[in-house]
Amino acid sequence: MKRYEKYADDIAELIRSGVLAPGQRVPSVRYASQAHGISPSTVFQAYYLLERRGMIRARPRSGYFVNPGALVQPAQAFSEPQVSAHVSESTEVDVSELVFSVLDSIKDPNTVPFGSAFPSPMLFPLQRLSRSLASASRDMDPRMVVTDMSPGHPQLRRQIALRYMVGGLMLPMEELLITNGALEALNLCLQAVTEPGDLVAIEAPAFYACLQVLERLKLKAVEIPVHPRDGIDLGILAQTLERYPIKACWCMTSFQNPTGALVPEARKRELVELLRKHQVPLIEDDVYAELYFGPHAPKPAKAFDTDGLVMHCGSFAKSLAPGYRIGWVAAGRYAQKIERLKLMTSLCASMPVQAAIADYLQHGGYDRHLRKLRYALEDQQRAMLAAVSRYFPAQTRVSQPAGGYFLWLELPESVDSLHVFRVALAQGISIAPGPIFSPARRFAHCIRLNYGSPWTEAAEKAMETLGRIIRSMLGH
Amino acid sequence: MKRYEKYADDIAELIRSGVLAPGQRVPSVRYASQAHGISPSTVFQAYYLLERRGMIRARPRSGYFVNPGALVQPAQAFSEPQVSAHVSESTEVDVSELVFSVLDSIKDPNTVPFGSAFPSPMLFPLQRLSRSLASASRDMDPRMVVTDMSPGHPQLRRQIALRYMVGGLMLPMEELLITNGALEALNLCLQAVTEPGDLVAIEAPAFYACLQVLERLKLKAVEIPVHPRDGIDLGILAQTLERYPIKACWCMTSFQNPTGALVPEARKRELVELLRKHQVPLIEDDVYAELYFGPHAPKPAKAFDTDGLVMHCGSFAKSLAPGYRIGWVAAGRYAQKIERLKLMTSLCASMPVQAAIADYLQHGGYDRHLRKLRYALEDQQRAMLAAVSRYFPAQTRVSQPAGGYFLWLELPESVDSLHVFRVALAQGISIAPGPIFSPARRFAHCIRLNYGSPWTEAAEKAMETLGRIIRSMLGH
Repeated sequence: MKRYEKYADDIAELIRSGVLAPGQRVPSVRYASQAHGISPSTVFQAYYLLERRGMIRARPRSGYFVNPGALVQPAQAFSEPQVSAHVSESTEVDVSELVFSVLDSIKDPNTVPFGSAFPSPMLFPLQRLSRSLASASRDMDPRMVVTDMSPGHPQLRRQIALRYMVGGLMLPMEELLITNGALEALNLCLQAVTEPGDLVAIEAPAFYACLQVLERLKLKAVEIPVHPRDGIDLGILAQTLERYPIKACWCMTSFQNPTGALVPEARKRELVELLRKHQVPLIEDDVYAELYFGPHAPKPAKAFDTDGLVMHCGSFAKSLAPGYRIGWVAAGRYAQKIERLKLMTSLCASMPVQAAIADYLQHGGYDRHLRKLRYALEDQQRAMLAAVSRYFPAQTRVSQPAGGYFLWLELPESVDSLHVFRVALAQGISIAPGPIFSPARRFAHCIRLNYGSPWTEAAEKAMETLGRIIRSMLGH
Repeated sequence: MKRYEKYADDIAELIRSGVLAPGQRVPSVRYASQAHGISPSTVFQAYYLLERRGMIRARPRSGYFVNPGALVQPAQAFSEPQVSAHVSESTEVDVSELVFSVLDSIKDPNTVPFGSAFPSPMLFPLQRLSRSLASASRDMDPRMVVTDMSPGHPQLRRQIALRYMVGGLMLPMEELLITNGALEALNLCLQAVTEPGDLVAIEAPAFYACLQVLERLKLKAVEIPVHPRDGIDLGILAQTLERYPIKACWCMTSFQNPTGALVPEARKRELVELLRKHQVPLIEDDVYAELYFGPHAPKPAKAFDTDGLVMHCGSFAKSLAPGYRIGWVAAGRYAQKIERLKLMTSLCASMPVQAAIADYLQHGGYDRHLRKLRYALEDQQRAMLAAVSRYFPAQTRVSQPAGGYFLWLELPESVDSLHVFRVALAQGISIAPGPIFSPARRFAHCIRLNYGSPWTEAAEKAMETLGRIIRSMLGH
């Protein structure tokens, strides 16, 4: 054990045992260095480590403090949700009515937004973005709106490619197309490689927007189970590819919605290899990529694409600029086809907005914002997990994602999550019930909870209420 | 003849006879009032009339001046293009490759943009819009990006409804959905009422983007001839509706692209009535609505819709904010279906941009800008028509639209417009060749010219070159 790890463990023990209480300042670097006879840089290393573990947090110009969530029971206290049983059938997708009725009902801004698909807009640098909008649109060459429509604003595409490069993924500029959010990108990808009636392999549970896109394009779904920690089941995917004429595979490889699963790097490589063997394109929905809690950004499956078969979709909606509707796709061998589909569908994304985000990426301090955002989400996850353990029935299983802002909960089997949804909504609390994540309306006893808003008294109370509602359905 | 009409005629005669030269100031209101013994308001009425006729133009704080284009020969000097022969067949649409190769080749900003689909961005208040972007995005309630995504920014929808109301069309707010430009709106409309393989009645010639949308959705086109002045041929449309199971009719009712045709109000009413009889929805592409040269805005067909069968699509791209990509649709009985399709396709249009345009409509002086824009376009049309008469072969037929920024030219039959396109492009001039406006690649000897840029020496020279190219193909 290295010196700094030893010191970090000492401090962690002080926190666990309650000597250092949540909110309390940990010893200053100078004090610790003198008291323990270690160098300041060793102390710093220890504090960085504790910060990454979520135990402490830096406040600008005032030192390190114990995190409010540091004392929450760690993962082991919860069982993970189970992998869904595999249903080896393709399903016509017809879930939109249910999804819309759920989404419509949770628009009320006074509802506690556990059912929301978005993190709180308050977590984003909207004022700083507004400055970028002002200056970028003022300085934009007007001719650009005619000449640079497709495949998108050159500076923005360069900035995105640069970020990938720093993360170890070389994306040629030519492959990058800017879209109206990732949802449009995903629509275009599916459309580029399928005809109505075709089969598409999707996750079970899957993000409901994926189901809606399939429905809109009249495609059939073959559901592949998702492990709540490791993601899509590659064994079953392999069998499915042998058995069915699958035309595409849609997969959220990092912090899957709704489970939060993160496919480990080695398995991402396997996934790409498996699909390459069958020459089936992978549509990689990677909109939560920036919201990791660990020390490093997880690599996308696209990083292992040697064949141009991976269509990799990203977005700023969840990490920087909700409502700006700027996403992108790096579509490999399908790039030109998708660029043309985009031109036929909606020409291009809003030019001043593209210019603004390019400006922000260059001058706005994106990485600083992301660090803050990740800390906030990790804290909020801890607080919500603690509330689950306080208020929910003991048989509850819950995922503990390493990023994103969703928990996936498996309630006791007798609980009907659509019933929970309705009762909770009547009390001003929204949740996302399991059946909206499955074309076969499975996951009847599962719910997705959003911890993307700052944790408040009201959130704590809402969790207590939810727990009571669920327990009442068990006849306790 | 009223007093002011008499005085207006006198001044017009002075202009025609050359007494008042282009650019010269006409008598001031005070001077004219004293000299002719008429009231100042009579003089004003006369000048307004002359202004509407394009003879004179007001300059702020310096009075009225003779228009540079006032002396150009009026319409009678040209024959109109002929109505295309009716082909009574449905056609699979497969024109995209040709369209893309034409569009790709005219992206170069150094090319004289007669082939462009856009007016010059220089004609728009982009700096003022940029101020609206800054203030509106700064003041926007962040929660709006979650709660008001669909059907769009409430203030923007209110402002649009208000403009229609002033024009005599009551559009309920609930019907209005904001989209990523009109192109997305048109895509959604077609998708809402068709299945692959269905027949759609379109114009001949038709805007090529319409053809691309049909191609993308695997629809078949039935072409209805367009008169270059009055628009779609209602007799043939009626026969077609009797004979074929038409699922929708797509029509640009005002300043049609490419001919510039304006369907008169009475015939718009007939069109709506005819389609109502067959219960066929009308997709009304009305993106040039604000670019009229006459004294009044033409009413859209939507104004005569009693049955909710008209899906009316508009946009700010051609009249205010190119590149902002904000359009809308008022879809009558299909409104909810289209709202849901939009949610599945791209969620919503960029929120800060919607807020900015709402702000501009309220405070930016939209009507003042539109007046200037219309004058500019009318002047430029006059200049281009004059150049056609100077440089093009005598057999040339040309439309003389009452709005928009396109001329449709019918060249002598032996001229191959794709050949003209290639030769002209090699000399730095773009044009839009006829075949891109037809699924059957007809209109081989027609071209569309864009007069949406300020008239320059280079434009004049380019017209001379074009004329020479065309004449060389006649063996003159």
